[in-house]
Amino acid sequence: MVEPVVGAAEEVPEEDVPGAPGTKIRWLLSPGVGAPNFSMRLFSIAPGGRIPEHSHDWEHEIYVLSGRGVITISGRRHEVGPGTYVLIPPNLPHGYEQVGPEELRFLCLIPNRGAGGR
Amino acid sequence: MVEPVVGAAEEVPEEDVPGAPGTKIRWLLSPGVGAPNFSMRLFSIAPGGRIPEHSHDWEHEIYVLSGRGVITISGRRHEVGPGTYVLIPPNLPHGYEQVGPEELRFLCLIPNRGAGGR
Repeated sequence: MVEPVVGAAEEVPEEDVPGAPGTKIRWLLSPGVGAPNFSMRLFSIAPGGRIPEHSHDWEHEIYVLSGRGVITISGRRHEVGPGTYVLIPPNLPHGYEQVGPEELRFLCLIPNRGAGGR
Repeated sequence: MVEPVVGAAEEVPEEDVPGAPGTKIRWLLSPGVGAPNFSMRLFSIAPGGRIPEHSHDWEHEIYVLSGRGVITISGRRHEVGPGTYVLIPPNLPHGYEQVGPEELRFLCLIPNRGAGGR
């Protein structure tokens, strides 16, 4: 029997994202806390930070909470800000850049098989 | 080949939620636009609105964007506000009430089999 989970995102410890300058991740919901199918992570990218382009065989579903940035998918640049939602299909190269004075914060959800043992 | 999707939540048409006074839903990402595994919806509940308790055999992953409310899961009431994340496991009765002067807005993600043909 899986128990409900109710938490405050700001109380979840931030972790560095290897290879991504200025970027932190909080794992909010994952298999380890009982999420049956998909995982919810909160990313923060500080001014000047970025996540270099990379690719994997699972999708991202993204919702931008605050700040501004550019998400590049298959070489095409998309300006994003609060309220932007994004589907990055599997196997497309994608990267993120923070833009402007404010930290870029977004939710990024993935199927559990991308959760790497969390 | 699934194409990327990039959109602005406020440009997605709102729909009524039957049986839920004051409640609107926007389907941001769903199987119909290529989401492979799970669907992203944005709910808004106006002051005085609510979603009565109900149950189904798929989970919810929720992130509160703005406003305040109470989410009841299996009879237990949880106060929620901006930055609250919630896992509602399958088959637990749950309901939502808006609280205070401001609309309650939250993302609610479900596995695609709950997306009802979207």
